[in-house]
Amino acid sequence: MSPLPESAATGPSAPLAVSLGDPAGVGPEVIAKAWAVRSAHRLVPFFAIGDRRSLEAVWDGPIIQISHPSDAFAEFERGLPLLQVDDPGEIEPGKPNLAGARCALDSLEMAVGLARSGAASGLVTGPVAKAQLYAIGFTHPGQTEFVAERCGVAAENVAMMMVGPDLRTVPVTIHRPLAAVPASLSVELIVSRARTVARGLIRDFGIPRPRLAVAGLNPHAGEGGAMGREEIDIIQPAIAQLREEGMDVSGPLSPDTMFHAAARVAYDAAICMYHDQALIPLKTLHFDTGVNMTLGLPVLRTSPDHGTAFGIAGRGEANPRAMIAAIALAGQCALARTLEAAA
Amino acid sequence: MSPLPESAATGPSAPLAVSLGDPAGVGPEVIAKAWAVRSAHRLVPFFAIGDRRSLEAVWDGPIIQISHPSDAFAEFERGLPLLQVDDPGEIEPGKPNLAGARCALDSLEMAVGLARSGAASGLVTGPVAKAQLYAIGFTHPGQTEFVAERCGVAAENVAMMMVGPDLRTVPVTIHRPLAAVPASLSVELIVSRARTVARGLIRDFGIPRPRLAVAGLNPHAGEGGAMGREEIDIIQPAIAQLREEGMDVSGPLSPDTMFHAAARVAYDAAICMYHDQALIPLKTLHFDTGVNMTLGLPVLRTSPDHGTAFGIAGRGEANPRAMIAAIALAGQCALARTLEAAA
Repeated sequence: MSPLPESAATGPSAPLAVSLGDPAGVGPEVIAKAWAVRSAHRLVPFFAIGDRRSLEAVWDGPIIQISHPSDAFAEFERGLPLLQVDDPGEIEPGKPNLAGARCALDSLEMAVGLARSGAASGLVTGPVAKAQLYAIGFTHPGQTEFVAERCGVAAENVAMMMVGPDLRTVPVTIHRPLAAVPASLSVELIVSRARTVARGLIRDFGIPRPRLAVAGLNPHAGEGGAMGREEIDIIQPAIAQLREEGMDVSGPLSPDTMFHAAARVAYDAAICMYHDQALIPLKTLHFDTGVNMTLGLPVLRTSPDHGTAFGIAGRGEANPRAMIAAIALAGQCALARTLEAAA
Repeated sequence: MSPLPESAATGPSAPLAVSLGDPAGVGPEVIAKAWAVRSAHRLVPFFAIGDRRSLEAVWDGPIIQISHPSDAFAEFERGLPLLQVDDPGEIEPGKPNLAGARCALDSLEMAVGLARSGAASGLVTGPVAKAQLYAIGFTHPGQTEFVAERCGVAAENVAMMMVGPDLRTVPVTIHRPLAAVPASLSVELIVSRARTVARGLIRDFGIPRPRLAVAGLNPHAGEGGAMGREEIDIIQPAIAQLREEGMDVSGPLSPDTMFHAAARVAYDAAICMYHDQALIPLKTLHFDTGVNMTLGLPVLRTSPDHGTAFGIAGRGEANPRAMIAAIALAGQCALARTLEAAA
């Protein structure tokens, strides 16, 4: 067996795959900008998957077309390694079209395949435009569900974890109207999400015994039933079950007092009952650096927590911090998996 | 007319009244600690209202019993001015009793009366124990409703504004189970709260044309009806009505992206649809320094956003930062009213 390339000595055994997302969005720009600061942020080697022209339209740095992911190790210092997908034709930043949507989907599909095969140590997905994807026959609610299906995992068994420098939050329910949240909660759902999160923290973050903090649903976590009974009827039983399984779980906590600095040190992830309970504290603290990570998949997957931002695409104004954070996190988690596999 | 005391030259024309709250709680301790740092925090003159022994039990600093609020100006530098209420008998920190509850209620009532008469320029309320108050026949949900009634204002016409150094938030609904929130919202309620907040920002904060940011209820503010219709059916019409009245109102905003630093500079207060939407960002950012301010009253009223904390009362461990912030804010707002009245 040939020796590992030098750059892998302290990193994962394969590079990360980064799909460019919609070629007319800000994905190509922020990915190129992330490559440009690879040293300062100590990013592990990665390669982009998508269309060369979408990068050239917004960036004049070096692009090195590769034919196999492993080439990314040798080329990463010289230029942004790129695996080209089928040519989508002319791409104009800020002007999405169906050919671009097909290109985004091809990129995603290739990235998932390479991650599944081990040729990529993880997957970072650039932003896509759902409306465009639906128009070409995409039937999944988003990239997460597509990746889950390709990995043979039911979409309801994955968890979305928002990761910032000082806080990790997981919404138990996600894109539901607020009025539908209480009826959507169940002991089984909370237990399932918490298990997925605990496994992810062990495997991808190297935390041997994760501490989970479970939020209440109601003001002051219901104050003993005075302001809602979901804590008593659903959340407490879920916590009891998780503890019976040996997990370190606190809660139900008053949602408003669990996210300040002194409270955050007591847990590794907060299990939240609804979208904004998880996203408000995360984005209030870490607006530019929040990473969306999908737990419960056989492959590592992160993405920056922003959209295609067509309105500013091509102007050079896109902020790459979230993409840098997504690549950095995927690299750290890939390394944790490599070390675990070697142990 | 006799000249104003020197300390009033750059401050309000009357001192602030600070009710000690439950004498067995942390109120006396944090109020005494606030007095001790009056210079460093440039607090305007204030006087405590309550029982002397509750202070002496937890503090060995100077206490100066006064017989009229205006005496506080002359005495404030020498000791903590105190207006004594009826003797509640023996008080043991951490051990609330009914005599203490009566003392807390007497203090509150006297403070409101002095603020209404103008003998106090505003009112800062220490924490009380509701269970104890209910046991002596108190029929209001809390101190806010009591103060409103004493001021002749219907409780539904006041607004609770949470004030931190970098953020002000107002929950439109407060202590409601989350499941009851959507049905509790109405155009009238949102409009009423927003008007109260705008008037408060003008009068008490000297902001001539307040900018209000109205949050959506649902994830991503409903995404055009895809995740809930309250934005379309209730919140947008409320915003339209407020704009017709000439107010500067933005929204409905996506709740998760409106509280980070760059977003906060665009508004003076955020109008939130439910308790935790307002309290999560406020307490995540400003856990120790959040002040609860009641808008819509003829009198100024602030309070620290914490309870009696009987569990730590008498140990000297209570953190006075929220009380200091509550007194400082009341002082600033009293000054704004004084300047407005003089203009």
